[in-house]
Amino acid sequence: MDRAVILLSGGMDSTTLLHYTKKRLKVSSVYALSFIYGQKHSRELEMARWQARFAGVTDYREIDISFFGDLTAGASALTDVSMDVPDLADLDENQRRQPPTYVPNRNLVFLSLAAGYAETISAQDIFYGAQAHDKYGYWDCTADFLDRINAVLSLNRESNVIVHAPFMRKRKAEVLKIGMELGVDYSHTWTCYRGGKVACGTCPSCVERAAAFEEVALADPLG
Amino acid sequence: MDRAVILLSGGMDSTTLLHYTKKRLKVSSVYALSFIYGQKHSRELEMARWQARFAGVTDYREIDISFFGDLTAGASALTDVSMDVPDLADLDENQRRQPPTYVPNRNLVFLSLAAGYAETISAQDIFYGAQAHDKYGYWDCTADFLDRINAVLSLNRESNVIVHAPFMRKRKAEVLKIGMELGVDYSHTWTCYRGGKVACGTCPSCVERAAAFEEVALADPLG
Repeated sequence: MDRAVILLSGGMDSTTLLHYTKKRLKVSSVYALSFIYGQKHSRELEMARWQARFAGVTDYREIDISFFGDLTAGASALTDVSMDVPDLADLDENQRRQPPTYVPNRNLVFLSLAAGYAETISAQDIFYGAQAHDKYGYWDCTADFLDRINAVLSLNRESNVIVHAPFMRKRKAEVLKIGMELGVDYSHTWTCYRGGKVACGTCPSCVERAAAFEEVALADPLG
Repeated sequence: MDRAVILLSGGMDSTTLLHYTKKRLKVSSVYALSFIYGQKHSRELEMARWQARFAGVTDYREIDISFFGDLTAGASALTDVSMDVPDLADLDENQRRQPPTYVPNRNLVFLSLAAGYAETISAQDIFYGAQAHDKYGYWDCTADFLDRINAVLSLNRESNVIVHAPFMRKRKAEVLKIGMELGVDYSHTWTCYRGGKVACGTCPSCVERAAAFEEVALADPLG
């Protein structure tokens, strides 16, 4: 595989995926896309930028779709400043199916833009960092979603763009383990949804990160 | 149906669809979205704005994704100023399958954003103006495409957003006929891909428009 597009958020999963595509899959030219979509935790973008440079990507772009935060105003605690990011412990079973941290149709938006870009630069492959844990609350991180978006893209008559999510069936701790083997520097990743200077430790994303580090019996370099 | 989102380009088909949703389908609240995506024929946006006002939509938004022109640079004559929009007569059969005027993955991008918006405002329905003629060259204007994007969206666990294209099996002349019955003012629509002050008359889009007016034996008010 000589050319691929990757969705890079600056979180643990997509960062691991970035290094995985370079080192394990030996993709020679990686084109990374990050999105400014009104997320409170825009600190993740600094991390994405750092990781992209460190991995030696061919191109790194930050796509500004902050209008998407307005378009989906009131619908997600990830973008709406008037909505609090909940603690994982406070979510009941019903809420977990599609939690307040879900952003309406976000991943389809990201992947659609990535597919237009991939087609343009003649890259056949797009990578995104969905992992097994996400499926509890995010329909756009499931294997069904992946299959169906690929069914859409397969209708293209000239370009053959395929979306891959190699970690789709791996738990976060397994992803972390792969990253450790690849020498990923997790001090340059950002996970906390609340986007403060220090990770809160209690939002759904922080809890998952902590559990993953605990499972592999390592200290999180972010502390 | 009390609330729907419509993709409004300012061309004949989506303009007709706008009035069709209001008058025929009796949608009480229509939310129109237009996109600035680097198209040369941005004159169509003036028309979209005029038609939205005239139809009395509940909300009209122009979403600026002009970065999409950069992201797909060199891939479409509709957005790249260094590429000429071809005359329809100059396209051979192979080129017509996916002509230079195709914009990589454009409609999936538009519909993805519209779906996020629809979900946010609790609209279950999205309308877009694909019609039967488009399928010759645009995979993202086909019934298969519609079915498959709906298959993606149906995975959503809380919202039930469906994309409709009521003109999918109608020829452009049939769409025009419906529009005439509905009293659509076609002097406030824009079709020419070349985006000059006067329609060129020879680009694929102009040729189709002229043929539709000829078929219904009417003069095009744009001249």
